[in-house]
Amino acid sequence: MPEPRRAAMVGRFQPVHKGHVKAMLDILAEFDELVIVLGSAQLSHELDNPFTAGERMVMLRLALAHSGVGPERYWIVPVPDAPMHSVWVPMVLAYCPRFEVVYSNEPLTRRLFIEAGFEVRPIPFYKREIYSATEIRRRMLAGEPWEGLVPAPVADYIKALGGVERLVDLAKTDKPKRPGQDEVSSAPHTW
Amino acid sequence: MPEPRRAAMVGRFQPVHKGHVKAMLDILAEFDELVIVLGSAQLSHELDNPFTAGERMVMLRLALAHSGVGPERYWIVPVPDAPMHSVWVPMVLAYCPRFEVVYSNEPLTRRLFIEAGFEVRPIPFYKREIYSATEIRRRMLAGEPWEGLVPAPVADYIKALGGVERLVDLAKTDKPKRPGQDEVSSAPHTW
Amino acid sequence: MPEPRRAAMVGRFQPVHKGHVKAMLDILAEFDELVIVLGSAQLSHELDNPFTAGERMVMLRLALAHSGVGPERYWIVPVPDAPMHSVWVPMVLAYCPRFEVVYSNEPLTRRLFIEAGFEVRPIPFYKREIYSATEIRRRMLAGEPWEGLVPAPVADYIKALGGVERLVDLAKTDKPKRPGQDEVSSAPHTW
Amino acid sequence: MPEPRRAAMVGRFQPVHKGHVKAMLDILAEFDELVIVLGSAQLSHELDNPFTAGERMVMLRLALAHSGVGPERYWIVPVPDAPMHSVWVPMVLAYCPRFEVVYSNEPLTRRLFIEAGFEVRPIPFYKREIYSATEIRRRMLAGEPWEGLVPAPVADYIKALGGVERLVDLAKTDKPKRPGQDEVSSAPHTW
Amino acid sequence: MPEPRRAAMVGRFQPVHKGHVKAMLDILAEFDELVIVLGSAQLSHELDNPFTAGERMVMLRLALAHSGVGPERYWIVPVPDAPMHSVWVPMVLAYCPRFEVVYSNEPLTRRLFIEAGFEVRPIPFYKREIYSATEIRRRMLAGEPWEGLVPAPVADYIKALGGVERLVDLAKTDKPKRPGQDEVSSAPHTW
Amino acid sequence: MPEPRRAAMVGRFQPVHKGHVKAMLDILAEFDELVIVLGSAQLSHELDNPFTAGERMVMLRLALAHSGVGPERYWIVPVPDAPMHSVWVPMVLAYCPRFEVVYSNEPLTRRLFIEAGFEVRPIPFYKREIYSATEIRRRMLAGEPWEGLVPAPVADYIKALGGVERLVDLAKTDKPKRPGQDEVSSAPHTW
Repeated sequence: MPEPRRAAMVGRFQPVHKGHVKAMLDILAEFDELVIVLGSAQLSHELDNPFTAGERMVMLRLALAHSGVGPERYWIVPVPDAPMHSVWVPMVLAYCPRFEVVYSNEPLTRRLFIEAGFEVRPIPFYKREIYSATEIRRRMLAGEPWEGLVPAPVADYIKALGGVERLVDLAKTDKPKRPGQDEVSSAPHTW
Repeated sequence: MPEPRRAAMVGRFQPVHKGHVKAMLDILAEFDELVIVLGSAQLSHELDNPFTAGERMVMLRLALAHSGVGPERYWIVPVPDAPMHSVWVPMVLAYCPRFEVVYSNEPLTRRLFIEAGFEVRPIPFYKREIYSATEIRRRMLAGEPWEGLVPAPVADYIKALGGVERLVDLAKTDKPKRPGQDEVSSAPHTW
Repeated sequence: MPEPRRAAMVGRFQPVHKGHVKAMLDILAEFDELVIVLGSAQLSHELDNPFTAGERMVMLRLALAHSGVGPERYWIVPVPDAPMHSVWVPMVLAYCPRFEVVYSNEPLTRRLFIEAGFEVRPIPFYKREIYSATEIRRRMLAGEPWEGLVPAPVADYIKALGGVERLVDLAKTDKPKRPGQDEVSSAPHTW
Repeated sequence: MPEPRRAAMVGRFQPVHKGHVKAMLDILAEFDELVIVLGSAQLSHELDNPFTAGERMVMLRLALAHSGVGPERYWIVPVPDAPMHSVWVPMVLAYCPRFEVVYSNEPLTRRLFIEAGFEVRPIPFYKREIYSATEIRRRMLAGEPWEGLVPAPVADYIKALGGVERLVDLAKTDKPKRPGQDEVSSAPHTW
Repeated sequence: MPEPRRAAMVGRFQPVHKGHVKAMLDILAEFDELVIVLGSAQLSHELDNPFTAGERMVMLRLALAHSGVGPERYWIVPVPDAPMHSVWVPMVLAYCPRFEVVYSNEPLTRRLFIEAGFEVRPIPFYKREIYSATEIRRRMLAGEPWEGLVPAPVADYIKALGGVERLVDLAKTDKPKRPGQDEVSSAPHTW
Repeated sequence: MPEPRRAAMVGRFQPVHKGHVKAMLDILAEFDELVIVLGSAQLSHELDNPFTAGERMVMLRLALAHSGVGPERYWIVPVPDAPMHSVWVPMVLAYCPRFEVVYSNEPLTRRLFIEAGFEVRPIPFYKREIYSATEIRRRMLAGEPWEGLVPAPVADYIKALGGVERLVDLAKTDKPKRPGQDEVSSAPHTW
């Protein structure tokens, strides 16, 4: 029995939104299985990366189940960042089931996979200016409604884990307004 | 809707064998979902760790499907090794969907999870002396039959990807017999 | 004999100033011992982190001795940054003597310790807008008087090691004004 | 006021024993202050490195207080291992208050400090064959009396934190006797 | 036979330009051999660091050959970034043939080498405002002529490897204009 | 002008010996240029890796000059070890000028390059049992004559830098004979 035909889609999914799901459904119409590369897996508790890899995995399964896609159609593979761009593609390949095609609109991701000999296809985004993880995090911080941009069970899950409160906490600061100012507390950065 | 009750099982799965599957079935009889922590995810192409994380993920899905368990019942989470034992458990927790109980027989794994406040249960192994990844790798290298120790589709998959040849290659050496001898070629080690 | 009751305070102490000392005295009025977590211990020779961990340790002891606090009342624990936020608290715990309470105003530090189950208390700062390491570094670079913001022996120590000259050197550049411009020399960054 | 004259002593202190204390007293008879470099600070929960840096710091203070030496006479500086031998000395120097002389019997430590231009003196050990951290760990595992080899408050502290049980747990294994055998559980190794 | 007298010059060489070559010729008029420290060797495929270490090595040899300098007069040593500034100089020393003097205008590089006891000399730049790697990358992105700023064989080499296209690709983005916005694709960052 | 035809040879060169040189001459008879991948570049001051990358670079140039091969025929590229085997080849490729063929007898090196699509050829060794870096280090430690196994200027260079004394120092120990015993001094290991 041959391996199924698989395509990969790379994202950070901070958080998963309806644009992601739409793209995944499109890819699954073309391929047997989808490999979801959950990038920057080691990051969490940052303004741009509030959710852990585990939380993002749950969101992805909830989102796809909500669209009728069972986990036998896809793989979720958390992959930590690479120490240098030139080894990122082989690192992804080592972490993932084999795939044939990559879907991405991100220029660096596209170029690295193309230089590695992969076919890379664009993702036809649906209402990109609103279905955007950045826009969702902005709305969460601004207290504006964001729930409509994500599948309903993802919204419920984020609320249940206190995701908005976490983001607000990360944005809160008691510091004087001069930028870069750091006082008593160290920010634990990556090495 | 509450989160499903989940238990975790930690392993390197080099390769997946029938003992693993038996343990997973036992755990799934007790819990809604199983979180399979695929440890040392970054390792491959070593005598003790021949297979990549991606290959081990495929083996796990093949093995469980062969026993009638669909992926909606479990999560496979590749986790790289930690830089210090004291941060390994929180690193696992950040990578995985939340779980309540850990199944493990490995003393260090047990102690680290117990110190972190988890309930840790032993795995009742089935014919441990033969259903063993070490035994399987030994048989592969010795040219002895190993296929019966793993689920049939796992054996097929390993053969299709040339896994035995890879292991034999890793064991082969043209070097004189004095131990530690290294000649022209550097072994690419972990940093 | 039971372990002493300890509280922790996290900081980078670039450099130690009177606001730090005031907060430490307040904490020591409540606890037997203070654990001073010297964060970002690996950093030095940067505009925001000019001093080495060793230099900061000396400053802390000088500052507390100047207020009549001997080292039997506190621990100074240099802790390097963590590779991911989710392991920073367990890493701090492994490096430090056990403590019960954390004092911090920094939102991320507060949240990470709270998620780890710690009681976190705010630090009532004294004249925060001037007793600030950022303000001190700014004054050092601007050639304005900064000595009054730090305990006298800390000022002497910084002068003796040529700290201001080091900071000025780090800020100096012969480069044309276009930002991000880098010429012949590589900046040695963290990995 | 000039900086005090300081000498450094490097060790892992797994655990602290009477031989360490004897050497420290000898050094303190010659120097104003002692810098105790607590090496391999990041390691714990290993057979050769059972105790965390924080636990070893407490042991050191207990041991020296038991000999009448207050912490104003010494510094304890936890230092993680370096990625390459050639940067270990400068890393130690960055973490520590300045010192003039190094006491060490370990050949690599001696050579690296000598190549860096330091005066390195040998440590005159007292009954080396029994005052040895390796011997103490061996006795702990064998159930033989070990308490007499460490200062009394260190023995009490180790017992209170369950140190012997931890060591025994780390040595315990349910695995079949073939060496290198690894089953279900991954050992969480350093990166 | 004594070792040749060597001077070092540190740079990232993204890309090599005529100002670099001029400085190298000046140094080679004073010393037997030049050690070219190729910094940030691990970086590539970034807007500020588009070229790999291997590509930069080729550029350097082409550029110097074009000025009549053969490789017996110099060493090219790719050195990855260090995890902390305080170990960068010893790391460079371990990677390189021994040298006596360092040529650099970059303040941090200068200070770190001076603190390590080296003689550091300034580089008399030739028309610095145009012979600048940043200016060259800017022109490449803007579609302006850049070829005159680099030695002719370097320009040919960059064109042959598609360097301008790579840079343009790295700068391209389909993202909406709000800064920091990240969509489906993760940028593979350094660890 | 097309790029020269290049072949790569991977080694640690601890130290360079006549077998290495013989192999290099053979390769240079077939190719325009040789890329010498100096592996484990970050290691030094270990029994198996006594020499720094810089020292090994000097040895290589001395050895090849002694055989009449100038540096315009080869590249020496120090490459640090990779964090995982699966990214080692792409890391080597990023550090090196492009090459077409790899010469290696080491099974892992061979397999990794073959899996990456390279042609890998064996190295016909000359008197392998004696022209061996391990044998040379063994003789150095045993006080037996080793100079005949390396090119004459390499022997002179090793003597001038005190290489034998370094190796002897690294092997010396004052420790009791029980293996694994570690006392006061920490061995500075890789992270």
